Amino acid sequence: MNKVLIVGLGLIGGSYARCLTKANIDVYAITKNEDDIIYAKENNIIKDGYAYVSKDFVNSFDRIIFCLYPKTMLEWVKEYKDYIKDGAIITDVSGVKGEILYQIQDLLKNKAEFIGSHPMAGKEKPGIKESDESLFLNANFIITPTKNNTKEGIEFARTIGKIISSKQQTILTPEKHDEMIAFLSQLTHAIAISLMTSNDDYENLVLYTGDSFRDLTRIANIDENLWSELFLLNKKELIESIDKFIKELNNLRNNIVNDDVEKIKNQMKTSTYRRKFFNKK
Amino acid sequence: MNKVLIVGLGLIGGSYARCLTKANIDVYAITKNEDDIIYAKENNIIKDGYAYVSKDFVNSFDRIIFCLYPKTMLEWVKEYKDYIKDGAIITDVSGVKGEILYQIQDLLKNKAEFIGSHPMAGKEKPGIKESDESLFLNANFIITPTKNNTKEGIEFARTIGKIISSKQQTILTPEKHDEMIAFLSQLTHAIAISLMTSNDDYENLVLYTGDSFRDLTRIANIDENLWSELFLLNKKELIESIDKFIKELNNLRNNIVNDDVEKIKNQMKTSTYRRKFFNKK
Repeated sequence: MNKVLIVGLGLIGGSYARCLTKANIDVYAITKNEDDIIYAKENNIIKDGYAYVSKDFVNSFDRIIFCLYPKTMLEWVKEYKDYIKDGAIITDVSGVKGEILYQIQDLLKNKAEFIGSHPMAGKEKPGIKESDESLFLNANFIITPTKNNTKEGIEFARTIGKIISSKQQTILTPEKHDEMIAFLSQLTHAIAISLMTSNDDYENLVLYTGDSFRDLTRIANIDENLWSELFLLNKKELIESIDKFIKELNNLRNNIVNDDVEKIKNQMKTSTYRRKFFNKK
Repeated sequence: MNKVLIVGLGLIGGSYARCLTKANIDVYAITKNEDDIIYAKENNIIKDGYAYVSKDFVNSFDRIIFCLYPKTMLEWVKEYKDYIKDGAIITDVSGVKGEILYQIQDLLKNKAEFIGSHPMAGKEKPGIKESDESLFLNANFIITPTKNNTKEGIEFARTIGKIISSKQQTILTPEKHDEMIAFLSQLTHAIAISLMTSNDDYENLVLYTGDSFRDLTRIANIDENLWSELFLLNKKELIESIDKFIKELNNLRNNIVNDDVEKIKNQMKTSTYRRKFFNKK
């Protein structure tokens, strides 16, 4: 891999570009705003790029990484699939796989290979200016092959995962990925948002807060366009996760109402025991 | 204030002792385990202390700080109130005020003054060996006077708040304190616990987790004896907070079910707007 095309130079695309450039790969980009191309060139994040899509340019790449919102990625493939080089291998970064991944594989059938991958890290602030070559340091990295993928495709995703310095790579089906992400990522965001909006006295609460509330609401600062899309694309799994969580919180609530100290303590012991597995190593 | 008695040398008592000793106050202690007294003396955290309660010793202090669980503090006062010097001023560190605070003020009536205070910081690990003179650096500190308190009593609490390096001191009624703490601290712990216990596949989830889940469950590692007590002492306020939160999360859930993108985005915008107030300055 001598050169790669990144489509979408935001926080994630920009961070990928920094890592790939550092690994001596020639990084080219296509993104919506000319300013981001200028910024990325001036800061040696990419070699060159354009704010428009041309067939000759796209057709010159064997390897492409989509760093777009899932639906934008699908629209892009629908519009420009004929520009893509025969036999190209393409991956993405998107937080939901299922539906969109299968649609893209169908659109590219007999032409190019699409292998899903997902770097498990991010930041509250969007945009290339927030990009950072250490954003994925020690992050988990998930690859979601289907029966349409080849060893070479999976190897491409693995190589990207290594170049961005992710710690641990895991292979999951798109379905298992989405089920897991509904719980670990989407439910946590839904909780943070609801906690933040459930008390209107926020200006006073600031005076009394400790770190617990700050920790639980860090991700309540959220990009509503991206996350409303992610929530709706993974609706079924997310609703199941929310319902399981509410059921569990209601159990605790009822144990409090009933002064059932032993049951409360048991739930706390379970939670303490399990949490130890999640300490960073 | 030349000398002070700390009752209870755990994480919080030990951290208070370190700060007071550093401020050139002679710190004495009473605590359950002899080992903790030995450790505290060897590490110059206290000047001296005992693992038993004697009248002559307790009676020699004008200033006392209780660093005990709330119910243990109440039991201590019931058992040893006659040992306390007439006119002594006493404060605490406890996370719930209401009921217990009024009972202690009643027990000490016409004898000593009890002024509630609460340093808003902590750590998951208990015990004097975890104590740290910077535990309360930049933390909020709440003082909860009632009609039974004097200027001198409030001033004592303020002085302690300064010595432990808290950032901001606020005066609240015990009732307002408990209402606020139910939302900011107890609800967040209830959420973290329920999130941790709502999915039994935790050993696999570790492989795929990002920082969101880690942040939301940091406090799921919890001391079940202290927190079951705090939850039950503040039952009414906590249940109200849990119910408000579940209602809000259910609203979000139903907007997802109905594909109501605008309502989902609006809740996210509100949450993003409010969260900015809680950034650390």
